[in-house]
Amino acid sequence: MENGLTHFDKEGNAVMVDVSGKNVTYRTALATGYIAVGPEIMACVTEGNVKKGDVLGVARVAGIMGVKKTSELIPMCHPLPIQKCAIDYELDQEKNRIHVLCTVKTEGKTGVEMEALTGVQVTLLTIYDMCKAIDKHMVMSEIHLIEKTGGKGGDFRFEEEQ
Amino acid sequence: MENGLTHFDKEGNAVMVDVSGKNVTYRTALATGYIAVGPEIMACVTEGNVKKGDVLGVARVAGIMGVKKTSELIPMCHPLPIQKCAIDYELDQEKNRIHVLCTVKTEGKTGVEMEALTGVQVTLLTIYDMCKAIDKHMVMSEIHLIEKTGGKGGDFRFEEEQ
Amino acid sequence: MENGLTHFDKEGNAVMVDVSGKNVTYRTALATGYIAVGPEIMACVTEGNVKKGDVLGVARVAGIMGVKKTSELIPMCHPLPIQKCAIDYELDQEKNRIHVLCTVKTEGKTGVEMEALTGVQVTLLTIYDMCKAIDKHMVMSEIHLIEKTGGKGGDFRFEEEQ
Amino acid sequence: MENGLTHFDKEGNAVMVDVSGKNVTYRTALATGYIAVGPEIMACVTEGNVKKGDVLGVARVAGIMGVKKTSELIPMCHPLPIQKCAIDYELDQEKNRIHVLCTVKTEGKTGVEMEALTGVQVTLLTIYDMCKAIDKHMVMSEIHLIEKTGGKGGDFRFEEEQ
Amino acid sequence: MENGLTHFDKEGNAVMVDVSGKNVTYRTALATGYIAVGPEIMACVTEGNVKKGDVLGVARVAGIMGVKKTSELIPMCHPLPIQKCAIDYELDQEKNRIHVLCTVKTEGKTGVEMEALTGVQVTLLTIYDMCKAIDKHMVMSEIHLIEKTGGKGGDFRFEEEQ
Amino acid sequence: MENGLTHFDKEGNAVMVDVSGKNVTYRTALATGYIAVGPEIMACVTEGNVKKGDVLGVARVAGIMGVKKTSELIPMCHPLPIQKCAIDYELDQEKNRIHVLCTVKTEGKTGVEMEALTGVQVTLLTIYDMCKAIDKHMVMSEIHLIEKTGGKGGDFRFEEEQ
Repeated sequence: MENGLTHFDKEGNAVMVDVSGKNVTYRTALATGYIAVGPEIMACVTEGNVKKGDVLGVARVAGIMGVKKTSELIPMCHPLPIQKCAIDYELDQEKNRIHVLCTVKTEGKTGVEMEALTGVQVTLLTIYDMCKAIDKHMVMSEIHLIEKTGGKGGDFRFEEEQ
Repeated sequence: MENGLTHFDKEGNAVMVDVSGKNVTYRTALATGYIAVGPEIMACVTEGNVKKGDVLGVARVAGIMGVKKTSELIPMCHPLPIQKCAIDYELDQEKNRIHVLCTVKTEGKTGVEMEALTGVQVTLLTIYDMCKAIDKHMVMSEIHLIEKTGGKGGDFRFEEEQ
Repeated sequence: MENGLTHFDKEGNAVMVDVSGKNVTYRTALATGYIAVGPEIMACVTEGNVKKGDVLGVARVAGIMGVKKTSELIPMCHPLPIQKCAIDYELDQEKNRIHVLCTVKTEGKTGVEMEALTGVQVTLLTIYDMCKAIDKHMVMSEIHLIEKTGGKGGDFRFEEEQ
Repeated sequence: MENGLTHFDKEGNAVMVDVSGKNVTYRTALATGYIAVGPEIMACVTEGNVKKGDVLGVARVAGIMGVKKTSELIPMCHPLPIQKCAIDYELDQEKNRIHVLCTVKTEGKTGVEMEALTGVQVTLLTIYDMCKAIDKHMVMSEIHLIEKTGGKGGDFRFEEEQ
Repeated sequence: MENGLTHFDKEGNAVMVDVSGKNVTYRTALATGYIAVGPEIMACVTEGNVKKGDVLGVARVAGIMGVKKTSELIPMCHPLPIQKCAIDYELDQEKNRIHVLCTVKTEGKTGVEMEALTGVQVTLLTIYDMCKAIDKHMVMSEIHLIEKTGGKGGDFRFEEEQ
Repeated sequence: MENGLTHFDKEGNAVMVDVSGKNVTYRTALATGYIAVGPEIMACVTEGNVKKGDVLGVARVAGIMGVKKTSELIPMCHPLPIQKCAIDYELDQEKNRIHVLCTVKTEGKTGVEMEALTGVQVTLLTIYDMCKAIDKHMVMSEIHLIEKTGGKGGDFRFEEEQ
């Protein structure tokens, strides 16, 4: 397509793109995003790893399972054999933000960017769900790809100023 | 639980909360969020409704189907009989942002906040997927609940200054 | 919508219709369809109930499970608590046709027409799958609703001459 | 099995056939089918691409997502990494029939015939769902494989007279 | 059916039983089962709650999510709106057995016995998966219903000597 | 991890293990387990293959479909392209036990032990479901891996005395 929207054919009809001619290469993707919570929730979540309920542990399991559901959720996404998936957190105690990082690896004909982003979103949603009884003013923001490697398009690294 | 994390029992173990004693009431939720795209993508998406590929139409279908998958994605979420679901868009042509609004209605013992938020996230992810061949510097932000009605907790309206 | 397409709003955007104001009533639907197979397959299927492999039994299980997946498959379909589901067969030995009948019952705010039709389609597809090693010239035809009861729209009975 | 029903073992028990010894080859399948609708629905659907609701666009998304669910729906079907999927339409304005064509590609040890047929069925069911408020006398017919390529069994082309 | 197998009709065909005439009542079910592990695994799992990896926490999430998938897994099972679900553990340090208890509640026309049993099985399978790198000689045993309440059939309590 | 729990990282966080560096090899797994039923159920099931309802046939279909759902059920399980799956039974008429055997084959970077065990569990649960109207005192026991082949870890054979 001239306009760059590869997920449509010449008549503008949505298609699952033909990747059969592409090479199988190792591919990785890393995505991120955060949820801004109030100080009360931040305290609960931080202590959570100890004894009062492991919010981040439950959300991690949800995120990893969400990664495996990516091609069920995103219509034009190809199913891929996920070979690794990890969810990590960075807690910004000052701004009361929980940052989520999702790493995904595969060996395939197309990349795992959508898988990594889906992993971040499902993790964030699960944190929201588990804390919403305290306060519903949580906001999820700055969800984006950090980097990807592999594939004909080459590596990508997110540049803040773009 | 004293600390307000209702999704855990007294020992801190995750549970799907007992809602059997709650009343069945009408419940609605409205959530929002946006994806910041470059000017090139904004142009494609805007024209998309005409002839070059309907990005927003495909993402709307994905979002509605995503709403129905909420309790599969979020571990402690109760399955609910969704009675209405709509995805709307507001295009901010100046800032190149596509705003997504998801409305969900049910009649049940617990609310549809998570459903509305999941609808926003899956819609945003699908827009990302369909435009990522043009530029991967898209960022999804400010995903939050706008309002909910129904249930013992009463109505809720998001206040910006919180 | 003036044009009768209730699954779209005034701007022509797809929506899952609001059924919250509708009454809960008992609802049934019966749908049918057939697969035309060659004589060789017809013989295998007929004997199948005895000792050589129960094609129709496997397809019945698939059809019932398919009914439960209807709202996952059809984007604007409301999830419904299925209360009964049966798959029956009529073998037309002369024309080598296997007729499928799917009955579904629920108590809800919207009908089970799509559930019954989906049950027929998944049953037919499974018969196809299990017999395709013999001959791929099978054709599935005349899949339609026979009747539905319940709901504000009243009962419906398919009339051949329409 | 002597009787050609490869999806059963020697005792007549259903099995997911062992394909581990087969070669990985490129495989394509093309399937078709139509839905006969009344003139009123035909008019709505035809105008749909313009402004009153894009029935065929929504059904295309459903069909592509349905293709990815094939091995979940058909019990003995092997999961396959779908590499391409497209849904096309041909509108027969005279007979008021909407023809659906589904193309699927993979590289694998077994073919994608069932995926292409499932794509046709889910697309047809979605058209039915979105138009059923106008008239429920729609009939889906002549759903069959048109051709397949790849695999040990060689290419196949549907012959009308069979 | 005279023989008591209610999941088949008079001809012996599998059916999803008609529950539409039954009353909606509160229903609970409690099921159990254990996995026998070696002493090394027992030590890992016990310490797991502290710092080395929370096997039981991950398995609890899987079990709760599994409960929600019951009607997708068991062909003739009715979908039910789960209103509560909890997974508890009892560690038998002497015999190196991890006992799983799954409680499920609903308000419906049929019971949640299968949901509670499925919750136990998925929890046990997840423990197995997470410990199998240490030793694959784990055995899952004595998975059964402990009690159920609600429904026309009345309450049930498992008696050891039966 | 020093403690052998490979499904956690150094900080004790659950991860889907990185298998990208492993070789693709043929892999098989065979798992087993039984359900102890009363004599009345045993009689029904045994006659079932004839005319009164094929409990074991339905459960076999459920088990095979369950195998394909393994990576959806078990959080840290990698999705694998199942290449063969069979469910077999051995009826112990004396002890009134139905033994289930599940064989799974794939070609991949990780094994199919969890798939075989999941196949056994879903088959057992389905037998339970279909017979529970007669008596709920059924018990599922001794579910374990019998053997696996392929992969760096080498072959495994379950030894009773362990």
